[in-house]
Amino acid sequence: MNANADDRLEGEAAIIGEFLVPLTQGDEGAAGLTDDCASLSPRPGTDLVVTTDSLIEGVHFFPGDVPAFKALAVNVSDLIAKGALPERYLLTLALPEPPTRAFMSRLVAGLAQAQREFGCRLIGGDTDRTPGPLTLTITAIGALPSRTIVRRSTARPGDIIAVTGMIGDAGLGLALRQDRACALAAGLSELQVGELVARFDRPVPRLASALLVREFASAAMDVSDGLAKDLTRLVAASGVGADVSLDAVPLSNTTRAMCERGVARREDLIALGEDYEVLFTLHSDEWVGLEAAAREQKIPVTRLGQITRGAGVTWRNAQGRPLQLSAIGWDHF
Amino acid sequence: MNANADDRLEGEAAIIGEFLVPLTQGDEGAAGLTDDCASLSPRPGTDLVVTTDSLIEGVHFFPGDVPAFKALAVNVSDLIAKGALPERYLLTLALPEPPTRAFMSRLVAGLAQAQREFGCRLIGGDTDRTPGPLTLTITAIGALPSRTIVRRSTARPGDIIAVTGMIGDAGLGLALRQDRACALAAGLSELQVGELVARFDRPVPRLASALLVREFASAAMDVSDGLAKDLTRLVAASGVGADVSLDAVPLSNTTRAMCERGVARREDLIALGEDYEVLFTLHSDEWVGLEAAAREQKIPVTRLGQITRGAGVTWRNAQGRPLQLSAIGWDHF
Repeated sequence: MNANADDRLEGEAAIIGEFLVPLTQGDEGAAGLTDDCASLSPRPGTDLVVTTDSLIEGVHFFPGDVPAFKALAVNVSDLIAKGALPERYLLTLALPEPPTRAFMSRLVAGLAQAQREFGCRLIGGDTDRTPGPLTLTITAIGALPSRTIVRRSTARPGDIIAVTGMIGDAGLGLALRQDRACALAAGLSELQVGELVARFDRPVPRLASALLVREFASAAMDVSDGLAKDLTRLVAASGVGADVSLDAVPLSNTTRAMCERGVARREDLIALGEDYEVLFTLHSDEWVGLEAAAREQKIPVTRLGQITRGAGVTWRNAQGRPLQLSAIGWDHF
Repeated sequence: MNANADDRLEGEAAIIGEFLVPLTQGDEGAAGLTDDCASLSPRPGTDLVVTTDSLIEGVHFFPGDVPAFKALAVNVSDLIAKGALPERYLLTLALPEPPTRAFMSRLVAGLAQAQREFGCRLIGGDTDRTPGPLTLTITAIGALPSRTIVRRSTARPGDIIAVTGMIGDAGLGLALRQDRACALAAGLSELQVGELVARFDRPVPRLASALLVREFASAAMDVSDGLAKDLTRLVAASGVGADVSLDAVPLSNTTRAMCERGVARREDLIALGEDYEVLFTLHSDEWVGLEAAAREQKIPVTRLGQITRGAGVTWRNAQGRPLQLSAIGWDHF
């Protein structure tokens, strides 16, 4: 069924003026989205942290979805893992056809929710037609005290390796969206399916994690392409190795039950992506303080193992034996 | 002919490490492109100006082109028109297939040239596969003294309206690329065709224009969607009108000759896009100073008319009679 022609928004001005301007929340530097550039006046003593990520229909999301919340969330996840709090963002929309009001309303509702959740606002962007798939590109800008950014390249031998939240739920949620029949085979209830799918569709990185990272982490990155692969990247960037326990990987009740029933395996879960948790290292003396702070912020943190002088990642089973893991996580090419 | 499989770059790491990292020129905040975020430490007393623009194959450029220089140039053009000088940029690549070394070399050569021309460097970005067309999205970050950004919304009645450079060349260059046969009909030499096409393929906004804007302009924007449409936007944003002379529109020798031969018309040239010049207004007392400064910087500036208390744009012919212009410039929808 074709949308009613009247329902299509013709012209960038209508798209921007009616739907996007409210998302600026009056930010002075956004200039009501009537200009080609945004401006910002950084507070003295702060650095800005900038990241950009695209979500492409058919690659990162299912046709028909409007993953506006997620588009902002995955960028915020990158900022948080560096210790930065999100403040502003730019949105680039590549649209395969003039958007309907219904589409723009869904898009704006998702962004508005994400802005509230993450405390940031729209300041600019670009809107284009494309012969290709719907693409949402966000450039997010965060802030932190000068010279406090936490890189992935600064882990030191002896540091504890830890991760926030639960691993694998979002990856299972993706699998369930690809094939709902899996749910039956896995013996999942509708509620459980909904929870896992929501972890894929609507990840919610925690702002308070940024403060933990800033205060305690020696190195950090977000877990987006699978814990196994991302840990491999962290140790490679730091020029160190890692010794970690597969059994230590934190699982939700649903996912643990699936492992126990033999319909999911831990070694596969760490190769799934989309967790949007924070993988970080810290000096072993800091662990007690970190645990207390995390408890106060209600952020689950789990110790996975330790940074070593070697290279690469050694995953061990419950008996301490090294495992040969074939799965390597997600690469776009 | 398929490219040799060996020639394809598999994995983001190869694309980034081998080709993109040199473009950071060691910028500390880029962290060697090994992290998900870039950081920057704004100088005290400066504001940052941010803009983003995408170039999509088949929409903004011809299949087979690798408009890397242009992708950076069109973003720089936006910054310059606000009085800002470019400093850093992020690059998001959406690639329809794993890129060849030849493709990446062309891309990097274009960006490297643009970086030299515009004095900025790569600090981050994102690389994705897409089922759609090749898309280059750049987010450019410039700087200027705090609170000196020049908006398009601040023109005042009585201000002079002026533009840098020549109008219409790039639009004619696009027409020539769409249909080379036009060149014969227009009686153009190969050299002239080459010059016009280059204005479309490789616009070179002038950094020194940023300083003129900052020192003299009451309002400014770049001319990207056609002089007529962009002037209409400037006066609408400022809540004023404009009275301008069509004959005053600055044309290159080639384009003027085409008009004289009747194969191009001024009223069409102001509706073409892609000029990447600066349209600006200034208090009439400032004109002499602006002219002297522009001469010193070797920037052609031309007076087009005057801002009025009315609304909308009145274009007049040589006899001072208002013209009815049908062409309205470029809109993406």
